[in-house]
Formats: sequence, C-alpha cells, structure tokens
Amino acid sequence: MQIAILLYDRFTALDAVGPYEVLSNLPQAQVIFAAERDGPVRADTGSLALTADARIADLPSPDIVLVPGGPGQAAMMSDGPVHRWLRNADVTSTWTTSVCTGSLILAAAGLLAGRRATTYWQAIDQLAALGAIAVRERVVTDGKYVTGAGVSAGIDMALTLAARIAGPQTAQAIQLGIEYDPQPPYDAGSPDKAPERIVAALRAGSRFK
Amino acid sequence: MQIAILLYDRFTALDAVGPYEVLSNLPQAQVIFAAERDGPVRADTGSLALTADARIADLPSPDIVLVPGGPGQAAMMSDGPVHRWLRNADVTSTWTTSVCTGSLILAAAGLLAGRRATTYWQAIDQLAALGAIAVRERVVTDGKYVTGAGVSAGIDMALTLAARIAGPQTAQAIQLGIEYDPQPPYDAGSPDKAPERIVAALRAGSRFK
Repeated sequence: MQIAILLYDRFTALDAVGPYEVLSNLPQAQVIFAAERDGPVRADTGSLALTADARIADLPSPDIVLVPGGPGQAAMMSDGPVHRWLRNADVTSTWTTSVCTGSLILAAAGLLAGRRATTYWQAIDQLAALGAIAVRERVVTDGKYVTGAGVSAGIDMALTLAARIAGPQTAQAIQLGIEYDPQPPYDAGSPDKAPERIVAALRAGSRFK
Repeated sequence: MQIAILLYDRFTALDAVGPYEVLSNLPQAQVIFAAERDGPVRADTGSLALTADARIADLPSPDIVLVPGGPGQAAMMSDGPVHRWLRNADVTSTWTTSVCTGSLILAAAGLLAGRRATTYWQAIDQLAALGAIAVRERVVTDGKYVTGAGVSAGIDMALTLAARIAGPQTAQAIQLGIEYDPQPPYDAGSPDKAPERIVAALRAGSRFK
C-alpha cells in the first residue's frame, strides 16, 4: 500500500508527520514523502527540513494521497504540476486526503467540488469559496475523500483512516503504540473553546498554520 | 532562546516534530535540529529523514535541550559524544527535556538520578532501573527537567513547557494555532484504557516507539 505525502516549501511539519506516524504503522504500508523535486524541503518555520525521497512525477498512482497544509499552500493554488499530479493520482487512489489547509489545494485542483470537507479553522470560508461543502468538524469523510482540521488534527484523521483500512483493532494498536492519550494542559484548541481575545489575536494575525 | 532538538538514527519522528511545532511558536524561539553529524537523519520507519542543521558539538549551551525517543535510543545508552554533550549542555540549560524513551538517554547520561520522570509506557521499569523516580504521568516536571510519555505526549509536554516559559495565554494561542483539540476516534492511547489483548500484543512485540 503506497502512501504518498506531498511536500512543498513552507508546509507545516506536524500536518505531515502526525499522519505519517500513524499510517506508517499500517500493515504493508510504504510511506513516501514526495515533492516536485526530491531532496530537502523546508517547513514554514525555516528550522525544519524533511527529505522528499521521490519526485511526484515518479509516483503516478499511490493508494493514498495525503496533502498537508501550511503557509506555503498559498503558492500551490494555481494549476501546474502539483494539481496535475493530484488529479491523475486521484483517478486511481483508494483514499485522497488532506490536513489543515491542504484541503484548499485539493479543492483548487478541482477534487472537492460539491463534497463535504474541512480545513484549518481560519480557512473554512476559503474552502467553501473553492466549491466544497465546508464543515467545521475534526475529521470529515465523503466517499474516498478524508480531510482533517488544522495541524494536529492529522493524527485524528489518520487514525480514522487506519480504522477504515485495517479495522478498529489495528487503529487502536497504533494509537497505543504512539501512546495517543491526549491531555493538553488547556482546553483552547478550537475557536469555540479558546478565550475570545486569543481567538481575536490569531484572527488579526491571519496566521494560516 | 535556543532550542536544540537531538536527532539520531532511528528516532521516532513525532517525538521530535510534535514539540518542535509547539516550541517554534514561542517568542524569540530558535529551534535547531542537531546530531553528531549534520545532514539527513533517518527515523525508525526508514521512510522519513529530517535534516540536522547543526552538529551538537557546535551547540554547547542551548537554553532548552530536547531528546526524542525511538528504537534508536538503544544505541544511545553508552557513554560517548551524545552523553558528554547532554551533560555539558545541562550545566547551563534552562530546561532539559525529553519525549518517550528519550528520558532513558537522559537517565543513562546521569541527568535523572533521583528525579521524578516519565517515559513510554513500555519503558517505565527501564527508566526506574536507570535511577530515576519513574512515574506514569503524561508530563512530569521536576525542577528544570520536563519529561513526556510516549510519542504523541511530546505535544502536551511542549505546551506545558510553553506555559512555564511564556505564560498560559501564549500557550493557549499556540494550542489554537495548531488547532490542538484532540478527538481520537478511540480511547485506546494508554495501557489502562486499551483493550487487554491489544496491550498484550504490543507487549509481546516489545515495540519501543
């Protein structure tokens, strides 16, 4: 089972590495990080580089396509090699997936028209404007399209997907393997829960993680 | 504020990238991935490589030291350049931290003797044998030593640390920025919660993530 995770300049690392940590534990999983060019790809902070081991051109038909988000998403919205690859790969993929603003790229490539999908909380309107039925849920499944909310939601998205692929017991074994028993010190991970002035501050900064 | 994240062959990627995603958002944070040699370092799966941008020898006094875990931890238990670097860096660090079996490396280097600390659920006895007061909690703080449980616990550890460094409002803003509102599809992330036969299967495999 070939799992292609797209990388591009200024992606958000946890968007990609959260799902990778889950999906790479699936039986027969072969995860491949891929980009237009192979070699190191810098994340949004500038202080992390992840290696693309393959060029997307060399992975025409992965079983799972995963598109992370990040500030670099903005430069991935025009038609070009990445969109063409996504559309071609989607023809034969079993699952086409995204985390955070990665769904904006899928939508811009034409793959989410009329489909229920989600994205980073600050990007919901933009996702709707691109033709998706944008909903604010942690993980959204519409047929073979599975989208996750912002950044850390990729872990929940991937566990949901793991259960669909290999069953709940395997998903639970993976969850225990990564000791995913979250206990955040605050309950501020959603704009519905965080203090209003913190939500406002992030909105003012328009930080699209 | 210089934050050095140690890399070594066969580390677990999420151990390092979870905290990175949190701590790199702290004001004036400069995160640097560092290893004995600079260049790409392969994670435990073989399918992910993260770039070490610095050699540990060139980072003698980071403000924060962070040691991830992973199967490669077993090769980091003997005295050598990594232990010497950890001991030297610890003399001047503000915080010395770990995720998962990273605490075994800290303990082997002599830094957790008589201190309360935690680790991956399967490694608790080993941590105790190395002289720490090993406790099964998600995040353990003892003075400047902050240790997290397995893999995904690094996110909770780093948010706890972020609050200590920059206050609860900044920690909450970071949490909202990464939309960390966890909703795992199962409640199986701890051996106390997962089905018994799944716990037994993982114990039989002795998989130290």
